[in-house]
Amino acid sequence: MRIARFSIDGNVAFGAVEGEAPPGSTEGLVLDIIKGIPFADFELSGTKVPLSKVRLLPPVLPSKVVAIGRNYAEHVAELGNELPGPSEPPVAFLKPSTSVTGPGAAIEYPSFSQELHHEAELAVVIGRMCREVPRERVADVILGYTCANDVTARDVQKREKQWSRAKGFDTACPLGPWVETGIDLKRAADLTIQCTVNGEQRQLGRTTDMIRPIEDLIVHISEAMTLLPGDVVLTGTPAGVGPLGVGDEVAVTIEGIGTLTNKVIKRG
Amino acid sequence: MRIARFSIDGNVAFGAVEGEAPPGSTEGLVLDIIKGIPFADFELSGTKVPLSKVRLLPPVLPSKVVAIGRNYAEHVAELGNELPGPSEPPVAFLKPSTSVTGPGAAIEYPSFSQELHHEAELAVVIGRMCREVPRERVADVILGYTCANDVTARDVQKREKQWSRAKGFDTACPLGPWVETGIDLKRAADLTIQCTVNGEQRQLGRTTDMIRPIEDLIVHISEAMTLLPGDVVLTGTPAGVGPLGVGDEVAVTIEGIGTLTNKVIKRG
Repeated sequence: MRIARFSIDGNVAFGAVEGEAPPGSTEGLVLDIIKGIPFADFELSGTKVPLSKVRLLPPVLPSKVVAIGRNYAEHVAELGNELPGPSEPPVAFLKPSTSVTGPGAAIEYPSFSQELHHEAELAVVIGRMCREVPRERVADVILGYTCANDVTARDVQKREKQWSRAKGFDTACPLGPWVETGIDLKRAADLTIQCTVNGEQRQLGRTTDMIRPIEDLIVHISEAMTLLPGDVVLTGTPAGVGPLGVGDEVAVTIEGIGTLTNKVIKRG
Repeated sequence: MRIARFSIDGNVAFGAVEGEAPPGSTEGLVLDIIKGIPFADFELSGTKVPLSKVRLLPPVLPSKVVAIGRNYAEHVAELGNELPGPSEPPVAFLKPSTSVTGPGAAIEYPSFSQELHHEAELAVVIGRMCREVPRERVADVILGYTCANDVTARDVQKREKQWSRAKGFDTACPLGPWVETGIDLKRAADLTIQCTVNGEQRQLGRTTDMIRPIEDLIVHISEAMTLLPGDVVLTGTPAGVGPLGVGDEVAVTIEGIGTLTNKVIKRG
């Protein structure tokens, strides 16, 4: 099931997306409004709205986004970093809730950077409160998957030791278009991730190439901190990261999930 | 005014702390329950409860805690780090909302560390939503100040490039006992910070010795990200950081604010 969050006439609701549309289009897609929230038992109301009539919002409102750096070998190499050794822990960093934005929303080019980069990533959406999740229970705490763009002020990242500003500025975390709950861990480890800028392909990778699989990441993060329903784990970006400019349209497409599109504007 | 957040009979409320008590005691302190929330106009209800009858909670529920590393020269030296140059940006990192705990609550020694350290810090509590705060407006966005302990898994911090786990694990951010709103920026820059473990002094510093003053920190952070009412900025720790063990009682005392006491327990 594809679960979207949206606003219509000033109300916010979750809905199940029905129908199929050509890539990049919402034509023919319909939302069946959810009674309740997707983190507990819920029912479809049967009340349907064309997706073209609503504004999609970030599919969840995470209390935090925990992101993983350097999880695809070719991307590690392209930034001139050393490949992590087998005993080295994953690089985990935080993006605050204020950095989250939705599908179709603007990425605001911040004033303190001259080098904004796209980073297309598979996002894991947590479904239940958990801590110290054993490897064999990881599937149980996942609600589903969505697309993410770990937008990065590369110049700031290079000059600041911790990445809170470089990767945590407002709008640095587009998520969407919806959460696909019909993907299991095995399938999630075998998906194509693509990023285009103004229709031109920039990144193309497969989740098969993650250095550390999703199970390891959830174990690693939840060993330290409680994950709450709606929290999001970003799993790293494949090679091909590159600049975004004002006016660019950046799209992250993940096989079996959908396309997350955002336009870059100057911060007002 | 000292604004506390507390629970009584299963209800959560804010209250103004009245009276004076000897250090470490709540005897004689009374809470005048606040009608509304301290981030907007509010009134005191006149309904009073002895502080000894309630459980104090973290004085705010931050959406995020933004913390500053290496902001006292002697502390930078004790960890063997180089003093930042005058043009170097402050080291800003995030502690998630799930790391926050209150006065009197336990610090849970996590399983993945063998070297937990205390770091006593002055915490700035944000009073209103803001971004790109000009230096001369910093005072306007501050509600007040409280004590913080930036509890750090030093061994994890040394081996992991980003500090999300080392400083972001559950209970790594005790805050309290209350927010003192009667301190202005000038006074905040001239306060004694002390940390004791089991009554023995470990850290003693003055906010006068911050490398970057509070104004710089708020400008720096808010240049990137929106700060929300209740968000907290930690301003760095003076020299004297050191180990905490299970059973230890650690107390952070800041002149003009109060004492934040927490006991270290094994994570259950």
